[in-house]
Amino acid sequence: MAIRIGIYGYGNLGRGVELALQQNPDMSTVGVFTRRDPATLQTLTGAPVYAAAEVEHMAKDIDVLILCGGSSTDLPKQTPALASLCNVVDSFDTHANIPAHVKNVDAAAKTAQKTAIVSVGWDPGMFSLARAYASAVLPDGKDYTFWGKGVSQGHSDAIRRIDGVADAKQYTIPVESALQAVRNGENPELTTRQKHVRECFVVAKDGADKEKIEKQIKEMPNYFADYDTTVHFISQEELNTNHSGLPHGGVVIRSGATGKNGEHKHVIEYGLKLDSNAEFTASVLVAYARAAYRLNKEGAYGCKTVLDVPPIYLLKENREELIASLV
Amino acid sequence: MAIRIGIYGYGNLGRGVELALQQNPDMSTVGVFTRRDPATLQTLTGAPVYAAAEVEHMAKDIDVLILCGGSSTDLPKQTPALASLCNVVDSFDTHANIPAHVKNVDAAAKTAQKTAIVSVGWDPGMFSLARAYASAVLPDGKDYTFWGKGVSQGHSDAIRRIDGVADAKQYTIPVESALQAVRNGENPELTTRQKHVRECFVVAKDGADKEKIEKQIKEMPNYFADYDTTVHFISQEELNTNHSGLPHGGVVIRSGATGKNGEHKHVIEYGLKLDSNAEFTASVLVAYARAAYRLNKEGAYGCKTVLDVPPIYLLKENREELIASLV
Repeated sequence: MAIRIGIYGYGNLGRGVELALQQNPDMSTVGVFTRRDPATLQTLTGAPVYAAAEVEHMAKDIDVLILCGGSSTDLPKQTPALASLCNVVDSFDTHANIPAHVKNVDAAAKTAQKTAIVSVGWDPGMFSLARAYASAVLPDGKDYTFWGKGVSQGHSDAIRRIDGVADAKQYTIPVESALQAVRNGENPELTTRQKHVRECFVVAKDGADKEKIEKQIKEMPNYFADYDTTVHFISQEELNTNHSGLPHGGVVIRSGATGKNGEHKHVIEYGLKLDSNAEFTASVLVAYARAAYRLNKEGAYGCKTVLDVPPIYLLKENREELIASLV
Repeated sequence: MAIRIGIYGYGNLGRGVELALQQNPDMSTVGVFTRRDPATLQTLTGAPVYAAAEVEHMAKDIDVLILCGGSSTDLPKQTPALASLCNVVDSFDTHANIPAHVKNVDAAAKTAQKTAIVSVGWDPGMFSLARAYASAVLPDGKDYTFWGKGVSQGHSDAIRRIDGVADAKQYTIPVESALQAVRNGENPELTTRQKHVRECFVVAKDGADKEKIEKQIKEMPNYFADYDTTVHFISQEELNTNHSGLPHGGVVIRSGATGKNGEHKHVIEYGLKLDSNAEFTASVLVAYARAAYRLNKEGAYGCKTVLDVPPIYLLKENREELIASLV
């Protein structure tokens, strides 16, 4: 019998999950749960739509609920609440708050004998795994995470909130010389500015003061002030034509040494080039939903992270096949 | 209390394990077990040396025995035999025989309530993990493994066995255009010849027929006949100066697609650049020895592979720290 998956939230990520489920024949889609009026929502594959509150009554028909809300306000509340109804998977990505999130979700899930896997995606997620394995096998080393080239949605939103801005896209780009130094095993000490640059494509409203907008962007604390930032003013048409996608990616590199006097250098690099940030994240969530289902069947209750899950739980094939084909 | 590690076999790999243990303060070295006369062996760090047969009497003082023998004749016999005495980790790397090896070791380990982790290293090992995670998160895709640039010891040995050859080193090198096509997500179909070339540095004995040696190398079935092979004759001095190391590495790349009609492409790449093949393999073995110890404490008996082990078991820090620092 297929693993029955519910999708909670229907933005870019929820739509990505709906599509990813089509690629996983061992799973079936129960439906989409939304806080909007279900009648207003048309799904991509015809998945049924229910009001968010319905999840409570339908919990017994859902093996795993994939949470597709945002990390700032949705997930900190939703994940613990829903983990007391269903097995859940989320992509909570506020790094500093992950330990507290795990703790909150763990309490709820354990009480309800449910399994939750949180902070699943690419960073946190696949990049967390890359850091973990690399640290384990090269204990004397240093790791670096570079993001991009890709669109940062938080930074794009921040520009859009500036007075006089009609639309904007922001790209995060690794500094090539820094990347090369790390790849060469030089173990450089890098400041925020030395690791990434930020490139902004901005559509100004008619009559807006472009100089003022550029200054406001470049001086924005946390978002841009610590980076070398370039601002290009372009037309809405050009933005739509050349900057409509949400590509992203990045690399995790660890370099380390072994030998009697550290004379042998080793470099481990894990990289992603993604045309669609949301769809890739969705694909990772779906694989971890399979793991959540299996862990729960085995009585492994509570909140897990990618570090806790044996890789074999992510794959639909049986163990003998996987050992023969992948090991 | 430190995890007490025994080292079974003392070639390049055994020496690598001895050194790797120095980088892992939660582990202690019980000693080296050898089939040679222990009196003739001087260890790199002063680890005590015992006759191989002693392992039977010392099993109770060993938490995990790391097996450092070869895959062709040693490990198929040693791993099942020793798994009935100790928790063990090995680097069995004959891909086609891994399923049978797992089965043999599993029976022995389960009977003795021991935990074995086999086929640990970089390929199989870290590359197996790269293939597994990438397949799980991009089910509609195709993966490629490229090896090199690096020294293949089996191929170097095969050249050395040719009449008239005094010494030799063979490098396996990925074909750059193939690598680029894969990185671009083109999903090419590649023959053996299209993926790798082989470059050989050969020291001929005085008066040997170089033309004949070159022909014998290039036509050697399985080893060279299916590849574009280049042979350079050099002096022993040049070989010693420029080709004394055992570097290796490679990449696992999976490209796949998501979206309603596969319109979004994604490329995942995991790469290794290793100055010392043996020392890196040793480092991976040591991390999995930690996992074998912990799994055994939890009653997870039998034979595992890297696919079965949660990444967190490889790291010495506690779970809360790891979630905060790595996820």
